[in-house]
Amino acid sequence: MKAELYLDRNLRFIGKNVDGLETVFDTHPEVGGEDTAATPMEVMLQALAACASMDIVSILRKKKKSVDAFKVLLDGERKDTHPKVFTRVIVKFVLTSADAEMGDLERAVSLSTSTYCSINAMFKASGCEMIHELEIIRP
Amino acid sequence: MKAELYLDRNLRFIGKNVDGLETVFDTHPEVGGEDTAATPMEVMLQALAACASMDIVSILRKKKKSVDAFKVLLDGERKDTHPKVFTRVIVKFVLTSADAEMGDLERAVSLSTSTYCSINAMFKASGCEMIHELEIIRP
Repeated sequence: MKAELYLDRNLRFIGKNVDGLETVFDTHPEVGGEDTAATPMEVMLQALAACASMDIVSILRKKKKSVDAFKVLLDGERKDTHPKVFTRVIVKFVLTSADAEMGDLERAVSLSTSTYCSINAMFKASGCEMIHELEIIRP
Repeated sequence: MKAELYLDRNLRFIGKNVDGLETVFDTHPEVGGEDTAATPMEVMLQALAACASMDIVSILRKKKKSVDAFKVLLDGERKDTHPKVFTRVIVKFVLTSADAEMGDLERAVSLSTSTYCSINAMFKASGCEMIHELEIIRP
């Protein structure tokens, strides 16, 4: 897999995938950024959620369960000293569905986090504790 | 560190940081996406580059070296079977500078990858081999 990243200005960087689709990264003014986009660590946390969510939503749809809305709330603890890696991440999956049961969501999350989700596997392998919370809302 | 992610449509997801700044993730049509944005694994690779590049560019500027342009070329190998984690990543840093010497770039990259860059540390800790290549272009 290839990808590129370019300095735009100050500490604002633009990532490009092979099709030229862009992802922007920035940081806070106190360290030289402009706060025009999320930081790399924020984006990494979101990429973890996106990777797992793509699996989970796909699995639920394959089981013909309705997915009216789906969101993920992330809370990552980091080491106090450099490098400030994630040490513990709470990933809360919130599914809005008329017909999915908790067992459906549990199996989808379990399949993703044990087998499919590459980013979850890398977080775990790095030593980060992963905590998954699940909620179903009826529309 | 808190962050959120929302399903937009199909397999397109929108990440939001605490200030509401958005990062979009999508995937390919053959798995249900629309290719409107980079995939989570592509973004993760770019986040790695952005994390290190913020350190490196900051260090060079503190040493009063000119940074006329800065780009990163990424090439990540993944495991063939699930979970398809990154096993080997080549990160090529290309600095355009009138006055930075290779030693300046080497020290900045070394400081980032050994001490500061949290994402590089997580990749390494996960078992991924990290290869750093450096190039300086005179403007």
